[in-house]
Amino acid sequence: MERIPILKMGPFLLVTIQVDLYDRLALTLENDLINMVSKTEAKGVLIDISAVSIVDSFMGRILGNIASMSKIMDAATVVVGMQPAVAITLVELGLTLSGVHTALDVEQGMELLRGKIGQLDTDEEGLYDSFI
Amino acid sequence: MERIPILKMGPFLLVTIQVDLYDRLALTLENDLINMVSKTEAKGVLIDISAVSIVDSFMGRILGNIASMSKIMDAATVVVGMQPAVAITLVELGLTLSGVHTALDVEQGMELLRGKIGQLDTDEEGLYDSFI
Repeated sequence: MERIPILKMGPFLLVTIQVDLYDRLALTLENDLINMVSKTEAKGVLIDISAVSIVDSFMGRILGNIASMSKIMDAATVVVGMQPAVAITLVELGLTLSGVHTALDVEQGMELLRGKIGQLDTDEEGLYDSFI
Repeated sequence: MERIPILKMGPFLLVTIQVDLYDRLALTLENDLINMVSKTEAKGVLIDISAVSIVDSFMGRILGNIASMSKIMDAATVVVGMQPAVAITLVELGLTLSGVHTALDVEQGMELLRGKIGQLDTDEEGLYDSFI
């Protein structure tokens, strides 16, 4: 199984990382994800890493990359389900995942994304109102 | 990574199968899933197998087992994202996944489950009405 499935759920995309991300798999994931964001016009990407117990700087960089790419494509990225040990390791590695939003589980992640979309809508309405 | 994560999404549980299910992993998944159904009072279980390209009779039996166990716990099981080749193989193996509902993708699977819950609600209301 050489690619990680990306599930479309309403305006969001959900990715569950269950296997070790080696170079090619990570690149394929980045590629697939950006294409899906473009194709489905997704407004948010949820990455569940609850099955990840060992993290290294490569994984940290991949998460950062995905967030940056999604942001350019106008989609927010939320990393959910991080194990406490993984958070400790990331900080010890000096990776603070700047630009990546985090939430405890998928539901809270979706809530966060919905809030962001709502906020955007309000901003746009505000912008629209200011035109009238 | 020795267990498959189970994500809670509202009244449903979502499992994405990305790795080959060997004996112990399948048993752990069955166990975790039933415990989660009990703990979260989930009404439905979605199993995404879009990453599964090779299927054998063991996998077919595991899906059937999960569906039967969930049914006893009052939760419906929907298998989503099956690749056409997998469907062909399952039928050739003589496994028609009886008792397992299927849908093309997660969104349609959720729709199906929502319909089932709605139907249950209506049935219960009908039952309730008949008591008055």
